[in-house]
Amino acid sequence: MTRKAPAVVLLSGGMDSAVSAAVALRDGFDVHALSFRYGQRHALELEAAAAVVRALGLARHLVVNVDLGAFGGSALTAEIPVPTGRSPDEIGRAVPPTYVPARNTVFLSLALAWAEVLGATDIYIGANAIDYSGYPDCRPEYLEAFEQLANLATVAGTEGGKRFRIRAPLLRLSKREIVLLGRELGVDLGLTLSCYAPTPDGSPCGQCDACLLREKGFEAAGQPLERR
Amino acid sequence: MTRKAPAVVLLSGGMDSAVSAAVALRDGFDVHALSFRYGQRHALELEAAAAVVRALGLARHLVVNVDLGAFGGSALTAEIPVPTGRSPDEIGRAVPPTYVPARNTVFLSLALAWAEVLGATDIYIGANAIDYSGYPDCRPEYLEAFEQLANLATVAGTEGGKRFRIRAPLLRLSKREIVLLGRELGVDLGLTLSCYAPTPDGSPCGQCDACLLREKGFEAAGQPLERR
Repeated sequence: MTRKAPAVVLLSGGMDSAVSAAVALRDGFDVHALSFRYGQRHALELEAAAAVVRALGLARHLVVNVDLGAFGGSALTAEIPVPTGRSPDEIGRAVPPTYVPARNTVFLSLALAWAEVLGATDIYIGANAIDYSGYPDCRPEYLEAFEQLANLATVAGTEGGKRFRIRAPLLRLSKREIVLLGRELGVDLGLTLSCYAPTPDGSPCGQCDACLLREKGFEAAGQPLERR
Repeated sequence: MTRKAPAVVLLSGGMDSAVSAAVALRDGFDVHALSFRYGQRHALELEAAAAVVRALGLARHLVVNVDLGAFGGSALTAEIPVPTGRSPDEIGRAVPPTYVPARNTVFLSLALAWAEVLGATDIYIGANAIDYSGYPDCRPEYLEAFEQLANLATVAGTEGGKRFRIRAPLLRLSKREIVLLGRELGVDLGLTLSCYAPTPDGSPCGQCDACLLREKGFEAAGQPLERR
């Protein structure tokens, strides 16, 4: 029996990264999930990430501290209100205050660090450039630039003969397609939490961009909404 | 009186980043120094960084937690011995175990996050590609790739009409030239700590690559060695 190659998968506890982890499993990788305690307003998404790890039976889950909250500047890490009740057309037209400056760059950099230590070449991210909030660090050209950087940044990429690949299997899928892919791969989407501002009892608010995009996805897929 | 533009300067507590901070001051920036508690073996470099901040009278100093130690894989963050007694010719020929996977990428990403929040476009790093340990993330092509990434990664770079610049003023200087530039700019190099493995009382070991490169620099500059 050959040993599976390791891959690092960014896992936020949301729906997209859970489906992306399931894709990595389907692709035959030994999935090493990476989550962050980055100063987010709530730790419920880390509980959701841990539940996804258990349900998918992933090899390893690391939760790393990185204090993005020290910089402020985002509704997800500082006392800035999360926008609610926006229409699907409105979402994605301009970058909302839930944007965390350079977050995906920080997360991918840390994934790259772990990948190099593990001897992994593949890094999965649940980025989506279709039904999304308009964040610049979810676009294909950004991810391609990071892949180039990864190969210049590391010993593995420059001398080790390895070529890092940033895999974003959901990049060009609609939320509808993501819901259907998750079902096809047997992901329990009810474990995942997309909400930016859950209520104190841990339920999604139903009003933020993430909740609204999720709801729209289930609706378009003709599926009953699954949520924590 | 016009308000000076802010710049983020990566400050490790070593000689190179202290000189790079002094260059940023000379360039007319309001210097925001950024250091990391990243799981390094000793916190003495953070004391050195704080001393440099005081001596240069910098506007602000932020020490951010990012747990690179969680990944292991380096002599600087795990129980792997630091090489000692290598000749200047040997240093730089192959990447030593003091390499921390993706460290500069993680640090520059965090600097980018702060820069975007501050409205700064300029990020200084004390990277050097002449008298260095052969780390891939100190090379000019790496820094250029990061600059491109920074402009794709952020709202400021994509919609805000800003252009981030990664400034590495020491990139092509020898250690000799760095010592002379530091003197010219009035940096108290005796406050800085280059050593990878200081003794328990906080003195540099005198035997690791960083100590040997530093010693060589002072010698070539015809200056008495200054150290903590």
